[in-house]
Amino acid sequence: MDQGARIEAALEAALRRAEGPGAPPKLAAALRHGVFPGGGRVRPRLLLAVSAACGEPNPTLADAGAAALELLHCASLVHDDMPCFDDAATRRGLPSVHAVHGEALALLAGDALIVAAFEAIARAAPADPAAAAAVTLVVARAVGMPHGITAGQGWESETAVDVEAYHRAKTGALFVAATTAGAVAAGADPGPWRAVGARLGAAYQVADDLADALGAEGDIGKPCGQDGAHARPNAVAALGVSGAVSRLEALIGEAVAAIPPCPGAGELRELVKLQARRLAPKSLVASVA
Amino acid sequence: MDQGARIEAALEAALRRAEGPGAPPKLAAALRHGVFPGGGRVRPRLLLAVSAACGEPNPTLADAGAAALELLHCASLVHDDMPCFDDAATRRGLPSVHAVHGEALALLAGDALIVAAFEAIARAAPADPAAAAAVTLVVARAVGMPHGITAGQGWESETAVDVEAYHRAKTGALFVAATTAGAVAAGADPGPWRAVGARLGAAYQVADDLADALGAEGDIGKPCGQDGAHARPNAVAALGVSGAVSRLEALIGEAVAAIPPCPGAGELRELVKLQARRLAPKSLVASVA
Repeated sequence: MDQGARIEAALEAALRRAEGPGAPPKLAAALRHGVFPGGGRVRPRLLLAVSAACGEPNPTLADAGAAALELLHCASLVHDDMPCFDDAATRRGLPSVHAVHGEALALLAGDALIVAAFEAIARAAPADPAAAAAVTLVVARAVGMPHGITAGQGWESETAVDVEAYHRAKTGALFVAATTAGAVAAGADPGPWRAVGARLGAAYQVADDLADALGAEGDIGKPCGQDGAHARPNAVAALGVSGAVSRLEALIGEAVAAIPPCPGAGELRELVKLQARRLAPKSLVASVA
Repeated sequence: MDQGARIEAALEAALRRAEGPGAPPKLAAALRHGVFPGGGRVRPRLLLAVSAACGEPNPTLADAGAAALELLHCASLVHDDMPCFDDAATRRGLPSVHAVHGEALALLAGDALIVAAFEAIARAAPADPAAAAAVTLVVARAVGMPHGITAGQGWESETAVDVEAYHRAKTGALFVAATTAGAVAAGADPGPWRAVGARLGAAYQVADDLADALGAEGDIGKPCGQDGAHARPNAVAALGVSGAVSRLEALIGEAVAAIPPCPGAGELRELVKLQARRLAPKSLVASVA
């Protein structure tokens, strides 16, 4: 099974458990809406790519970690789109969860997706419970306080914001979790993989800022101009378009250079360069390819 | 250290981690508001009591499980009080989290508390990672879909509701998790403990319904008449006050009878009877004591 199919299968298994007999049907539908159809599944793909590069001795745990990361990412999108945050009516080109199912079910769906993420990892524990606990800690750090996604979103309520810290928490944390959890699931030292994830997360944020600023709504499937409208920090506002593109190129180069020696290092380098082309808005692909 | 002090210490440790250097201060304050000062800490006390009754070979994991249950309970209260649910301005006699910190931070605080719960269990894993994974699964089942708290709250959005299933998910699930996680953390068979938790959870729900219907706002520290106002199922509406009190007494008796043979069974039976007196609204204490 290729990595994309493994990710969809792991997500489908988690959703089927959540929709099991006796589940309230409307909430079950809201959960599914939050996860399928997905976006690029960028984070779980990165996790599986790192696990594969490290030799992948425990694909069951890697699959569970990948599903957990994506479920947590989806949960953050469901909550981020709600009226008390971005009040976004669309996501991935479709109506957002609260727009279809209402605020109450969107709130619960996000909560249930967070729980399903940790449940998925625990279910994959039997082969190596200590590694599963280590993956859990990596993932929890990426989404919880003080430095995970929730912290990143929390910075939006502060008046004095460190832009780097904000992006590191809101976007970078899940990328660091993807690379380090991939290593941990494979029994490898996660240390060297932090820099790889951090650079890729920063690159992804710059690409997202470019898409937001350039108004490529069709590309990113959600409303544009949100950062300006919500007065949030944005790399394009700070560096200009060409400065942001240069920054994106530099970050991808640093990520590739930071990949530590491992059985599949060469393949992973090529994969990251390939992904870099997908990160940039389509109108800029030529310049970052 | 007595059980109450152990619970507060475990919660304080989890909160201190979440408030660590670099945390957004307002969200950190919202998290703390959601957890301290607490209510009766009924669920973590029950977990520690069962772990102690089973001989408590792993107090670190029991403490972590207890903290996790309470963090998840607090998260559900923070989200349940929000405008899209109960729109409750008070909780435990104080302003609710969203009333003080706003909806955005209340939403994030609940999310971060859910994450902190699973992180607490994973941090206690080293001594017995397999037992930690088992506790994680018990806890996840109690809060996630299809049968945990989120499912229970999800039933409030359905038109056709099975009252028993609703209460079992919304209130009973965390009590079942308290007794079974206490057993699992102690390496005991969780099977017989399900019935104990289920009966205690049902008793707690009846007591809550009595408090809501009788308007003892000072006793429960939150707005009364909420079930009637939100057209939610309520045991008093179904059975009348004296019928509900009889049901409460019967459930406590069944819970005590269901306690399986274990080193501390006698002490646990006395503790449950003592707790039963606390469950009922003060005006009814004499009749259920």
